[in-house]
Amino acid sequence: MLNWFLAFVPIAIVLHHFAPGRYELVFITAAIGILPLAAWLGRATEQLADRSGEGIGGLLNATFGNAAELIIALAALRAGLYDVVKATIVGSIVGNILLVLGAAMLAGGMRYPEQHFNLAGARAQATMLTLAAIALIIPAAYHGLVGELYAGGEKSLSISISLVLLVVYCMFLLFSLWTHPSFFCGVNLPDDETSSQPWSLSWSIAVLAICTSAIAWLSEILVGTIEPTAQALDLSDIFIGVFVIAILGNAAEHASAITAAIKNRMDLSLSIAIGSSIQVALFVAPLLVLASLIIGPEPMDLLFGKGLILAVFVAVLITGQIASDGRSNWLKGVQLLAVYLILGLAFFLTPRA
Amino acid sequence: MLNWFLAFVPIAIVLHHFAPGRYELVFITAAIGILPLAAWLGRATEQLADRSGEGIGGLLNATFGNAAELIIALAALRAGLYDVVKATIVGSIVGNILLVLGAAMLAGGMRYPEQHFNLAGARAQATMLTLAAIALIIPAAYHGLVGELYAGGEKSLSISISLVLLVVYCMFLLFSLWTHPSFFCGVNLPDDETSSQPWSLSWSIAVLAICTSAIAWLSEILVGTIEPTAQALDLSDIFIGVFVIAILGNAAEHASAITAAIKNRMDLSLSIAIGSSIQVALFVAPLLVLASLIIGPEPMDLLFGKGLILAVFVAVLITGQIASDGRSNWLKGVQLLAVYLILGLAFFLTPRA
Amino acid sequence: MLNWFLAFVPIAIVLHHFAPGRYELVFITAAIGILPLAAWLGRATEQLADRSGEGIGGLLNATFGNAAELIIALAALRAGLYDVVKATIVGSIVGNILLVLGAAMLAGGMRYPEQHFNLAGARAQATMLTLAAIALIIPAAYHGLVGELYAGGEKSLSISISLVLLVVYCMFLLFSLWTHPSFFCGVNLPDDETSSQPWSLSWSIAVLAICTSAIAWLSEILVGTIEPTAQALDLSDIFIGVFVIAILGNAAEHASAITAAIKNRMDLSLSIAIGSSIQVALFVAPLLVLASLIIGPEPMDLLFGKGLILAVFVAVLITGQIASDGRSNWLKGVQLLAVYLILGLAFFLTPRA
Repeated sequence: MLNWFLAFVPIAIVLHHFAPGRYELVFITAAIGILPLAAWLGRATEQLADRSGEGIGGLLNATFGNAAELIIALAALRAGLYDVVKATIVGSIVGNILLVLGAAMLAGGMRYPEQHFNLAGARAQATMLTLAAIALIIPAAYHGLVGELYAGGEKSLSISISLVLLVVYCMFLLFSLWTHPSFFCGVNLPDDETSSQPWSLSWSIAVLAICTSAIAWLSEILVGTIEPTAQALDLSDIFIGVFVIAILGNAAEHASAITAAIKNRMDLSLSIAIGSSIQVALFVAPLLVLASLIIGPEPMDLLFGKGLILAVFVAVLITGQIASDGRSNWLKGVQLLAVYLILGLAFFLTPRA
Repeated sequence: MLNWFLAFVPIAIVLHHFAPGRYELVFITAAIGILPLAAWLGRATEQLADRSGEGIGGLLNATFGNAAELIIALAALRAGLYDVVKATIVGSIVGNILLVLGAAMLAGGMRYPEQHFNLAGARAQATMLTLAAIALIIPAAYHGLVGELYAGGEKSLSISISLVLLVVYCMFLLFSLWTHPSFFCGVNLPDDETSSQPWSLSWSIAVLAICTSAIAWLSEILVGTIEPTAQALDLSDIFIGVFVIAILGNAAEHASAITAAIKNRMDLSLSIAIGSSIQVALFVAPLLVLASLIIGPEPMDLLFGKGLILAVFVAVLITGQIASDGRSNWLKGVQLLAVYLILGLAFFLTPRA
Repeated sequence: MLNWFLAFVPIAIVLHHFAPGRYELVFITAAIGILPLAAWLGRATEQLADRSGEGIGGLLNATFGNAAELIIALAALRAGLYDVVKATIVGSIVGNILLVLGAAMLAGGMRYPEQHFNLAGARAQATMLTLAAIALIIPAAYHGLVGELYAGGEKSLSISISLVLLVVYCMFLLFSLWTHPSFFCGVNLPDDETSSQPWSLSWSIAVLAICTSAIAWLSEILVGTIEPTAQALDLSDIFIGVFVIAILGNAAEHASAITAAIKNRMDLSLSIAIGSSIQVALFVAPLLVLASLIIGPEPMDLLFGKGLILAVFVAVLITGQIASDGRSNWLKGVQLLAVYLILGLAFFLTPRA
């Protein structure tokens, strides 16, 4: 059904060229057009992952689920929209653990009174999130305390912390895929047989290439309309980044995490939701900082606004509590969604700067 | 024995009318007079709860234990003493988890080397407290970051967050009373047989009505003396609200929680202490915000001072750690009481604004 | 092998007297000279502890492992270098839980896929750390909120909180040594037989006295060179205090904690690392505040800079998560070390005030 949305791809491109003043229309059509492309990109990468052996399920799923976000963020980076890039990073971290995981726990909890997941893996992931939150808090604190005394310090600090995060992320992959894969195995069910026919290798690669190019194209169009659309709707760029773009980018994870929860495979659901947040925080964000040194108009730092940092901090705080006992129920889903709603209200009511 | 304090009810009223300048005397006598009334109100509601079936013990106990606080807060609200209302809310949240729970764990820990409680319920309650702390932090952060750009935003944000909290509170009741009551059952002992005779329905209702009216009357008197008493003792209104009034309002819970701990019924003790904090944060506070739209001289917001927010935050932080392993010992009691004492010292040393 | 470093003791003293301008050289030689003295002091106190009965292992070890730090801090206190004293306190708290525990978990995790430790004891220790972090946050918040209205308040608050912390520390000793020693027993192995010959009582006392005097002497020399050395290397005093001096002071714990982890005695390792942080926060810091009333040029308060407080807060936050499930693996070590590295980068890039 999602495939019908592919019709929005040409519509967005046509509108972009022939109705240049209708920014909201272009924004909406480009945004909708990206959804099925991201889904196909996800499927193609899953097929490639299956071929390369290893049932590394949720993690790889999340890895490639973020490809769409990375492409959008790179387009925004090239356009110098650093506020939007940062808002998208935070929106993706927060959205995955509050909205996606919350919806999954609620949906799963409606069917099962209590669901279980692998405690050791969930804790390792929650600690990774805490580490990521700390890595975002430190540069802002540094800015507040010594920023004006030594401006060059912020840039050096951002680059060094980015390198530390990338190394830690590699360690985490090593840990979860090689030395301790059992931490991330399901506690409930054997892996689902995927009933569908495997794709041929050339078909997988072709889909991957086409979707990546199309998303890149639409992203360029989308990014150019953010500012005028935000202005027309009287919303802040931050709100658009944290809630609208991040939700788009996470739509694929959203669907997979809920489906997994309904099938009582909470481990997969957690891996998708939290794993995706970890990947954005420890891999996408530092990568963008380093990429900005090459492709951006000027270097991007890791300095996030106070509102964004608070959002990450409270999200990580409550996720740590929720994930720390290996059980899930519908109330936990409600609690996560309530925090997401409260944050959403605060950002929605934030006027344009 | 507490009944002797009933004598202070007429004394307070007489002093209020015939010694109008002696504010401290009126404050103290009204405060002492409220204690036995709150206790009788608690007993009457317990009787009514027993009648309505369901052994929903601690939770209902806490629900009605807060009736006295709600009445006092409404009186302060009508008088426009919003600082006192907010201080009382925070004092009640903090006092229940640090002072009441701390004293209960210490008292219980003096008799038993280790006491146990239902882990799943304690964790659900601790997460609720974290949610409440987040709901108090966000409006203050909003105020600090965008408050001056868009003043109307604070009011909208306070009302929306209040509605979210009330919905979450209803969900929590649904969860604890209906879908997952077993999370809140004791792990140790069967329910105490209540040796005392059940009251007749009309007697229960009569006691309820009389106590409510009397508390309301005394509250009006008490509230009028807070400011001059604070001035006479050279204490801030905040200190009076956070420590004096909140301790009064929690006296009933305090006694029940300690008694339960000594009887080795830690689940009941935790339900009373943490449950009461949850109820104040997720039910009383938003209700007061909404009530202020009708009865207050102007709308009250959810914007708490930084000192109050920090107090809630540290209290919730340490309670989360203490409640997260299902065991209690005397050292945990000491740790909670130490945090309460440190907060008390800081507020005590805060000069009148 | 460490004993060869004893040669630096006379070198430092000679340089101090005959090369008064070469501050960096004096700083480095004095610092290296303290290392073996601290190790011998540790051995002497261990011998004395063994004699006095009780296999109270890790805790006593940590207690006397901090003697060197206390002596250095007292020297800095007498010289009025309060910023250095505070930085050393924070550096010691943070260094023990991030660097020492991180290195121990990493080293242990390289040999064993999963190591276990006594959960109840680790949680009690983690809660103590949270309490300590709260005790450091409150005076700074007080300063920010009411500092200027009532200057005398900060001094009273610092002294009162120091007294509360000392009482809580005594309670913690009572708990861990007397009422609940089993919380701190190992879960894995019987206590190592110490193959070495016990020392005679007079020898133990002689070593103790000689090392204490020598450390005190070198500390006076070291403290006098901190400021000029920091200036020569263009580093802030804070960085020197938090990272250089604190690492020196913790070198003994560092070695013991790693050795214990490699022998798969994680309980001992945790007791040394976290126990040492607790001791610095709840015993050394308040003792220094009280000592400053007598020996310092003016009273020292418990008011730490925002950067130092944030460092303690994030360290305690992540340690709470890491210690809360009774298991350790190499990734946890990496996570702790990454936070230490990020903090180190931020302080390293902080310019001299």
